[in-house]
Amino acid sequence: MPPVPAPASIDLNADLGEGFGRWRLTDDERLLSVVTSANVACGFHAGDPVTMRRVCERAVEAGVRIGAQVSYRDLAGFGRRAMDVPPAELAAEVAYQIGALEIFARAAGSRVAYVKPHGALYNRVVRDEEQARAVVDGVLLAGAGLPVLGLPGSRLLDIADEAGLPVVPEAFGDRAYTASGTLVPRSSEGAVITDPDTVVERSVGMARSGTVLARSGERIGVRARSLCLHGDTPDAVGLARRVRAKLEAAGVRVEAFA
Amino acid sequence: MPPVPAPASIDLNADLGEGFGRWRLTDDERLLSVVTSANVACGFHAGDPVTMRRVCERAVEAGVRIGAQVSYRDLAGFGRRAMDVPPAELAAEVAYQIGALEIFARAAGSRVAYVKPHGALYNRVVRDEEQARAVVDGVLLAGAGLPVLGLPGSRLLDIADEAGLPVVPEAFGDRAYTASGTLVPRSSEGAVITDPDTVVERSVGMARSGTVLARSGERIGVRARSLCLHGDTPDAVGLARRVRAKLEAAGVRVEAFA
Amino acid sequence: MPPVPAPASIDLNADLGEGFGRWRLTDDERLLSVVTSANVACGFHAGDPVTMRRVCERAVEAGVRIGAQVSYRDLAGFGRRAMDVPPAELAAEVAYQIGALEIFARAAGSRVAYVKPHGALYNRVVRDEEQARAVVDGVLLAGAGLPVLGLPGSRLLDIADEAGLPVVPEAFGDRAYTASGTLVPRSSEGAVITDPDTVVERSVGMARSGTVLARSGERIGVRARSLCLHGDTPDAVGLARRVRAKLEAAGVRVEAFA
Amino acid sequence: MPPVPAPASIDLNADLGEGFGRWRLTDDERLLSVVTSANVACGFHAGDPVTMRRVCERAVEAGVRIGAQVSYRDLAGFGRRAMDVPPAELAAEVAYQIGALEIFARAAGSRVAYVKPHGALYNRVVRDEEQARAVVDGVLLAGAGLPVLGLPGSRLLDIADEAGLPVVPEAFGDRAYTASGTLVPRSSEGAVITDPDTVVERSVGMARSGTVLARSGERIGVRARSLCLHGDTPDAVGLARRVRAKLEAAGVRVEAFA
Repeated sequence: MPPVPAPASIDLNADLGEGFGRWRLTDDERLLSVVTSANVACGFHAGDPVTMRRVCERAVEAGVRIGAQVSYRDLAGFGRRAMDVPPAELAAEVAYQIGALEIFARAAGSRVAYVKPHGALYNRVVRDEEQARAVVDGVLLAGAGLPVLGLPGSRLLDIADEAGLPVVPEAFGDRAYTASGTLVPRSSEGAVITDPDTVVERSVGMARSGTVLARSGERIGVRARSLCLHGDTPDAVGLARRVRAKLEAAGVRVEAFA
Repeated sequence: MPPVPAPASIDLNADLGEGFGRWRLTDDERLLSVVTSANVACGFHAGDPVTMRRVCERAVEAGVRIGAQVSYRDLAGFGRRAMDVPPAELAAEVAYQIGALEIFARAAGSRVAYVKPHGALYNRVVRDEEQARAVVDGVLLAGAGLPVLGLPGSRLLDIADEAGLPVVPEAFGDRAYTASGTLVPRSSEGAVITDPDTVVERSVGMARSGTVLARSGERIGVRARSLCLHGDTPDAVGLARRVRAKLEAAGVRVEAFA
Repeated sequence: MPPVPAPASIDLNADLGEGFGRWRLTDDERLLSVVTSANVACGFHAGDPVTMRRVCERAVEAGVRIGAQVSYRDLAGFGRRAMDVPPAELAAEVAYQIGALEIFARAAGSRVAYVKPHGALYNRVVRDEEQARAVVDGVLLAGAGLPVLGLPGSRLLDIADEAGLPVVPEAFGDRAYTASGTLVPRSSEGAVITDPDTVVERSVGMARSGTVLARSGERIGVRARSLCLHGDTPDAVGLARRVRAKLEAAGVRVEAFA
Repeated sequence: MPPVPAPASIDLNADLGEGFGRWRLTDDERLLSVVTSANVACGFHAGDPVTMRRVCERAVEAGVRIGAQVSYRDLAGFGRRAMDVPPAELAAEVAYQIGALEIFARAAGSRVAYVKPHGALYNRVVRDEEQARAVVDGVLLAGAGLPVLGLPGSRLLDIADEAGLPVVPEAFGDRAYTASGTLVPRSSEGAVITDPDTVVERSVGMARSGTVLARSGERIGVRARSLCLHGDTPDAVGLARRVRAKLEAAGVRVEAFA
């Protein structure tokens, strides 16, 4: 696979607002100082209305783009349990979540700018034709022609693209890739990269050169207009900051996708 | 109290979409052939995304206006249990519900045209200053300057009016009124009028003359731009139809409020 | 496959208490006059505490056995959407539901006498080793060595049996069977038998002779100590009554499994 | 008010298991090394089945008594929003929660040993006759004649006592008391004592002498067989440890109430 030309710039996205009521999870304040796109939980796996409102207000203050992080309806499982939701239900559930977040985005002076599935739904729509189509239907139902953020090569992005929606492929600095450019499944040895220096180096490499070393040792192209950062631990925020600093030091413009 | 001039027209509103998942309650199809304004449940006391979508589509087909029927978050209690929700939470919860419904209203080619609180919240904001203000804050947060439908003389309508929102007072053909124009509490004998002929007669009377006989026997003025119909039983739909037919026979224009 | 000897008696089971809060679904009162075992919803797909209490009280009055109808946690989907729940979660969720019902069964002077999975979970544990084992673990956690009601040949019953739990295979008078004795999937033509006379005839036939005509025309053996009746429509209750009357007329003792 | 004789021993109780799914709140492991009674969340304001199971197992290992911390059904509000739940619903909801926890207590080799209301319900039943009676009805429904832990002088404890249930009055080392022995409302200045030394001193004083200095400066009697410790912050656990150490150093036996 030939190297893909380095992008002029890279977007940094992370999950925010993933508390619920009394419970907190993501360090929203600090993350907003690092990312350019905030995947805001919309109440189905996490995210209560007060948190959604506050995150939208803070995102606007920080100049961060607001995206709807849509999920299966599963607070007890944090949206991490795959569900066989019939397509019509899933489409309507996706639209519902986008609509709820849109109110807070507008109230804060912005708009929902993209949609990204969360957790088990994210994984499911990599290959599941029916659910991928249902998510796209939900985005279309929401009406604004919103970009869809997801895994390059996933059914989700392909179907979104066919439906005329902008697509934003993302890459992961902390995940191993196969030679064919897919993510090594989490269940495999070495799927998640935990060494901070390696994560930073791979992140910067992908942003600059559009390539990364696959597990096989081969250098492969990675189409990515956004890097996904994790932020549910204090360390993760520190790591995210290092990634951003190194990107900027390397001359990569860190900015929301066009 | 002098009689209020008869309105040129009257709006008929009813609660719709009050099922959840597998469960049905309101006879949405038939109600949409009677009412001019549909108070659509938004998921907090009833109403799932699929139902919300369908009711919005049918409402648009039937030329019926779509309103957000906002509630406490209480599926188990159907929103009928008063809750001491802090104002910031309540305002955000109201906005969340409006936003979710707005997506489906827009997708169907319409917009959310008004807001009406449901059940225990409806009753609470008659007198509770703090919660009434929170509901108004939620409507303002939603941004479109939406009219608020509620009880004449309630704190809700007064605060909404002060905030510059249009207010739509409603009346009830099946409820007894006190001499001062408030509803007789449901706990009192004779609070709810069950005789269909009497309900029809009072409904038409209020719409034509703007007056009704209070329990004391006195004729009082009733400010109402909408009549609230109930529709959660087959009989109720039949009664609603009779009310509408009699209104039209009496020369009252049945149409959504301006 | 040789005919199985006719059982001296047959149990009749049906789902009960499948409302939630304001919503009703099953005609609990009438069903309790037909069945010998009540699969009571425990709050995860349906069933609120007030309903659970009332159904337990009525079941005891009617001499009907109480079973825990356990489900995925999915009120919005009525437990009909398969979920990839990790085994430890599923086992604990099953035990939680049994425990909650047990309080009401005891308060009514009885006990939870068996466990039956509901909806998507019922279907999943026919073949899914991991989830079947998790359900059994949940039953074992509940501690009373409760019988498990399910599909003959399912992983659930096999694993329950290996774990030392009594198993109660059930049959369906309104479902077509394959030549190998499994249910024809609902997605296939003719999977569900709607003609009442045929349902009654097959039900009685299975109870008397332990055999039924497979879709192929072949007569096959059906191991069943219980017949599953449906009761979520008025007609279904009438049908259930006819099945019971015909069983009794045919000399089959209708009684809870030993 | 004359000083109450010092108890030979004191119980220490704290809320545990107050996470939900992905979210954690209480430091259950460390708290179990301090308290003698664990108020375990039962799923209505917090507490999922996996957490309930684990806390019960750990509590048994640590020799800590298990109590059911029952709440309004309000995950979004963490049970901190008072609700007008009708008595029959509240009683059934209380019993449901006790039953669910009982399964895990038994599986761990113990039993639910008492019941304590949480949050807004705790506060409500101090004075609300109807809800206090409903909670007691729920405990009676659960059948084991369980002790009720609550505020001395509350309607809850009085009604529980009249109903023949053991009552366990508790005291708070970090709350100011009025001269009449009630808690200074949280909304008042100085209601919550934050200085650790003062909290420790008052806790030990109450346990040893059964008295405490009221806000008025008067020494008043405090009937308490248990001290309530808070544990939702790391500091709180440290403070709880200091309280326990000081109690033991002062010769007070720290042990679960008889």
